[in-house]
Amino acid sequence: MSPQNDVSYIESDLYKIRHSAAHVLAEAVLSFYPEAKLAIGPPIEDGFYYDFDLGKDEKGRPKTFSPEDIEKIENKMKDLLKQNAKFEQSAMSIEEARQFFADQPYKLELIDELAAGKVDENGEPLSEPVSEVGIYTQRDFVDLCRGPHVGFTKQIKANAVKLLRTGGAYWRGDEKRPQLQRIYGTAWENRVELEEYLKLLEEARARDHRRLGKQLGLFHISQLVGSGLPLWLPKGAVLRENLEGFLRQAQLERGYLPVITPHIGKLELYITSGHYPYYKDSQYTPIDVDDEKFMLKPMNCPHHIEIYKSEPRSYRDLPLRLAEFGTVYRYEQSGELNGLTRVRGFTVDDSHLFVTPDQLEEEFIGVVDLIQYVFNTMGFDDFRARLGTNDPNSDKYAGAPEMWQRGIAAIKQAADKVGMRYAVEEGEAAFYGPKLDFIFRDVLKREWQLGTVQVDFLLPERFDLEYTGEDGQKHRPVMIHRAPFGSMERFVGILIEHFNGAFPLWLSPVQAMMVPITDRHIPYANKVAAELRAAGMRVEVDASSNRMNAKIRDAQLQKVPYMLVVGDKEEEDNAVAVRTRENENRGAISVADFKAQATTFITTKSMEL
Amino acid sequence: MSPQNDVSYIESDLYKIRHSAAHVLAEAVLSFYPEAKLAIGPPIEDGFYYDFDLGKDEKGRPKTFSPEDIEKIENKMKDLLKQNAKFEQSAMSIEEARQFFADQPYKLELIDELAAGKVDENGEPLSEPVSEVGIYTQRDFVDLCRGPHVGFTKQIKANAVKLLRTGGAYWRGDEKRPQLQRIYGTAWENRVELEEYLKLLEEARARDHRRLGKQLGLFHISQLVGSGLPLWLPKGAVLRENLEGFLRQAQLERGYLPVITPHIGKLELYITSGHYPYYKDSQYTPIDVDDEKFMLKPMNCPHHIEIYKSEPRSYRDLPLRLAEFGTVYRYEQSGELNGLTRVRGFTVDDSHLFVTPDQLEEEFIGVVDLIQYVFNTMGFDDFRARLGTNDPNSDKYAGAPEMWQRGIAAIKQAADKVGMRYAVEEGEAAFYGPKLDFIFRDVLKREWQLGTVQVDFLLPERFDLEYTGEDGQKHRPVMIHRAPFGSMERFVGILIEHFNGAFPLWLSPVQAMMVPITDRHIPYANKVAAELRAAGMRVEVDASSNRMNAKIRDAQLQKVPYMLVVGDKEEEDNAVAVRTRENENRGAISVADFKAQATTFITTKSMEL
Repeated sequence: MSPQNDVSYIESDLYKIRHSAAHVLAEAVLSFYPEAKLAIGPPIEDGFYYDFDLGKDEKGRPKTFSPEDIEKIENKMKDLLKQNAKFEQSAMSIEEARQFFADQPYKLELIDELAAGKVDENGEPLSEPVSEVGIYTQRDFVDLCRGPHVGFTKQIKANAVKLLRTGGAYWRGDEKRPQLQRIYGTAWENRVELEEYLKLLEEARARDHRRLGKQLGLFHISQLVGSGLPLWLPKGAVLRENLEGFLRQAQLERGYLPVITPHIGKLELYITSGHYPYYKDSQYTPIDVDDEKFMLKPMNCPHHIEIYKSEPRSYRDLPLRLAEFGTVYRYEQSGELNGLTRVRGFTVDDSHLFVTPDQLEEEFIGVVDLIQYVFNTMGFDDFRARLGTNDPNSDKYAGAPEMWQRGIAAIKQAADKVGMRYAVEEGEAAFYGPKLDFIFRDVLKREWQLGTVQVDFLLPERFDLEYTGEDGQKHRPVMIHRAPFGSMERFVGILIEHFNGAFPLWLSPVQAMMVPITDRHIPYANKVAAELRAAGMRVEVDASSNRMNAKIRDAQLQKVPYMLVVGDKEEEDNAVAVRTRENENRGAISVADFKAQATTFITTKSMEL
Repeated sequence: MSPQNDVSYIESDLYKIRHSAAHVLAEAVLSFYPEAKLAIGPPIEDGFYYDFDLGKDEKGRPKTFSPEDIEKIENKMKDLLKQNAKFEQSAMSIEEARQFFADQPYKLELIDELAAGKVDENGEPLSEPVSEVGIYTQRDFVDLCRGPHVGFTKQIKANAVKLLRTGGAYWRGDEKRPQLQRIYGTAWENRVELEEYLKLLEEARARDHRRLGKQLGLFHISQLVGSGLPLWLPKGAVLRENLEGFLRQAQLERGYLPVITPHIGKLELYITSGHYPYYKDSQYTPIDVDDEKFMLKPMNCPHHIEIYKSEPRSYRDLPLRLAEFGTVYRYEQSGELNGLTRVRGFTVDDSHLFVTPDQLEEEFIGVVDLIQYVFNTMGFDDFRARLGTNDPNSDKYAGAPEMWQRGIAAIKQAADKVGMRYAVEEGEAAFYGPKLDFIFRDVLKREWQLGTVQVDFLLPERFDLEYTGEDGQKHRPVMIHRAPFGSMERFVGILIEHFNGAFPLWLSPVQAMMVPITDRHIPYANKVAAELRAAGMRVEVDASSNRMNAKIRDAQLQKVPYMLVVGDKEEEDNAVAVRTRENENRGAISVADFKAQATTFITTKSMEL
């Protein structure tokens, strides 16, 4: 959710503090760089930013801020905050504003669009033209702004503000427009809150899935294969295959049928579905084959629809639940790419349910139940639901208004029936219909959108889908699109950070590491490993020349759940001495008991060790 | 194998009969179409063909043969065969031949290339220029030909010859050259042999995997998705996933590690590997992303190599066996596409083993052993091996001659050690190294190339692969490429035809169909189905209003292994009355006994029912 849409945040003191801090940041920057051109500076979740254009260097590249610059700017900000100044609200006519901001081209562009009713001062879409613009002034710093702000700079505690980092950003997010220098900062009510936040940030950095992904051998991004195209290393592939296997089994029990479809399709297919040109900017350019154009698929739906259409369908065939772990490709700007969580190719745990209108509610409830089951199994208890509806003023949604109303009503009815609470957010729908998204809060209290369920009356129309009803007449089915994980890449990225790489036993790439105390104990270690492997466990033997403690430490760094130390005594007793990755020393237990306990935890997908 | 290269076939009487029959076919065609232009007419496996250019119709389209024309031509051929004529061999100088064939442009082109030493009379590559060309004459029909032929037309029995079908073919297989009309025929030593062959053809037609694939709901080709891009329907996907699961398990037990890689990669990756431009004609055109070019991957090797390179490797890491069911895309002409066996996107059960030179032999043997295990499990006992080596006169093979010698020697040594017999075929290698292919003969005695093992010293050079040896020095690993199934699509296509859709129990998409005698028995049928499903079996219940015999027939048409009939008596005894798809009526047995027997057959991948 963008914080701009969260009413409780907008009305909060923190929002005003951050918004005001952004103005003070711009004031501080101008004090060192009077020629800087200002773009926008909104409050965001947990902080604020401001975008600047510092001009070009002698090689024609955009000038940037150095770490020393940022330190200097932060100190200046703190000085300015302490010199108590009032945030004064006023207004200018469009013409006055144009004159006042004559040497600020980005502000001028905003003023023009404000006058035309296109955007607000943050560049966000707006609906009505304005005749005058809001202005906030502190000292001699004047900005185009509707507020709200705090009353005086002193209301922002200097020791509760910090500049965090810089980054490049294109003006209006458009890579064809100038590149700007963005400074990110954070601001809180007091020093303690800031420190807690910085601690959380540090923890998040330590858990960064890109770092852990390398350390644990989970995935790799090769520049020769391409940015945003992760290669799953053996341990990552084992983790992912276990997740897929878990969902496959749950789907089998719920009457889903597997299908497999190619990664390309004819351009006409996507024109029929409406993905093209809707997804044009995020689709790869077409590939010419003979006289036809093919595209990498950005979604699996059209392929599943062609399977539905491969034979005449009757009401007896419905609900038809087709499921595929389908890899799709979408273009993302290289600056947006991030490890596994923002990629150019990802695998959707996709399914399309073709249902009669009468079955819609029950099937929708079934899907919500499956998603809850998946989240519960993963130990995700902190999640909320969001009902994304169309924005009636936008033209990016296809289909008749009455279809949208039916879809939204069906979702509400089903959610109410299972007692699922949700917030409604306009403009968060898919282009073909409304959706219910599941948003998970991880241990660091960060929110991630995961599973989704979407109701679709549109694609069945576009593809002229039919089934013969009990009445012998042709009817139109409804489609449900759903993905509990969302994307395997993103989900695993989130899992890595949430669990800090210490996955539940059933998902751990290596579940136990045998630690023979000396070389003499290697044969016994191999024997125990073989016995545990025969029970389906993933076990390795550390036969290196390292000492016992080093072997234990290595395995703990790899977040292996169990270290099984074996020496003379264990060999004699047919036992293992169990250590956990949290370094709990459980002493010796018989191999049979360990195996029984561990395999029970694995089978039940327990969070316990 | 092309029959042109099979010495025993070329020296056989059948080869002469078919070659001569092709000449008589051309003679018969000229008797009706004196203006026809003749292209080539070689013997092929099981028969012969001849290509003709009949000129254009009034709309400018190539004229074709109608079924009536073919009947007329066949009758004329039989007449000509009975009129005993001698096949007389002679020679013409290049100049004489040019004059004689002045109104036969295709023959003229061949004569020019023969004179230049480029091709033989069948358009096959040749190495030396000739000063005169071979000629065969029967009656007034004269053809450019080296023979061999039978002595007299009567040596071809008229009742052992049949014209089979017509088809379009481009001159020299080049779609930019004129389209010709090809007539396929077959010829045998006698009537009985012909009849046996026609019966086999009919059986092959009945088993056509495209027909069975539709009837059994295994796959579908949608024109909107694209030719050569099969969609796997639920039953086909279940079959394929079972095959994959079987190989995954076998690989797990043999120390293979799973990986997952994207379906595209940067053009540079394929330039480094040498796939581009080598595979240029069979690769899809590049996709532009920002300033980079990406391609659909034609092979998985470069991606696996990037995984090898993702961290420094030591001898302790080797052998490293990376495995992936990796879908690749290669361009095929639309006329070449055929169901699942010739496609534009297919999934290789791929693996790349990175080994030290010392490990090469043992690892090669391990791979051969795995392939034999896979074939044995499938019940494929009729197979042979072919060692494909480079053609020293061709420039399509990369790498130093000494690399090729090492690779070929390693394969021979390993094959000899396990007592695997093989035939050597020059010019059948991969561009990067020699390979051992496994060729399977199905129940209709047709040969199919399946599994392959390839030794590769070249790509490790190209990608500068290294490992640190025990000596602390950098060394170059050797790669083994291997795929036991070859391609999932092709393998399943062959399986369908080999088993005529009646797959072994463990692979059957539906393993048992419950047949309740009346509606009253449906609850009991559901109960038994649930019990069998809980034991992992795939069971459906026919709850339709059809009568028992119709239900049994429907299930048999779907090649479901077991029909489990349940009525009052079975319900009372907690039993099922078992029928098989071969319509064997086994009478009633207890549910427990049936379950035990069937699950044993499934677990052991038995061919029994």
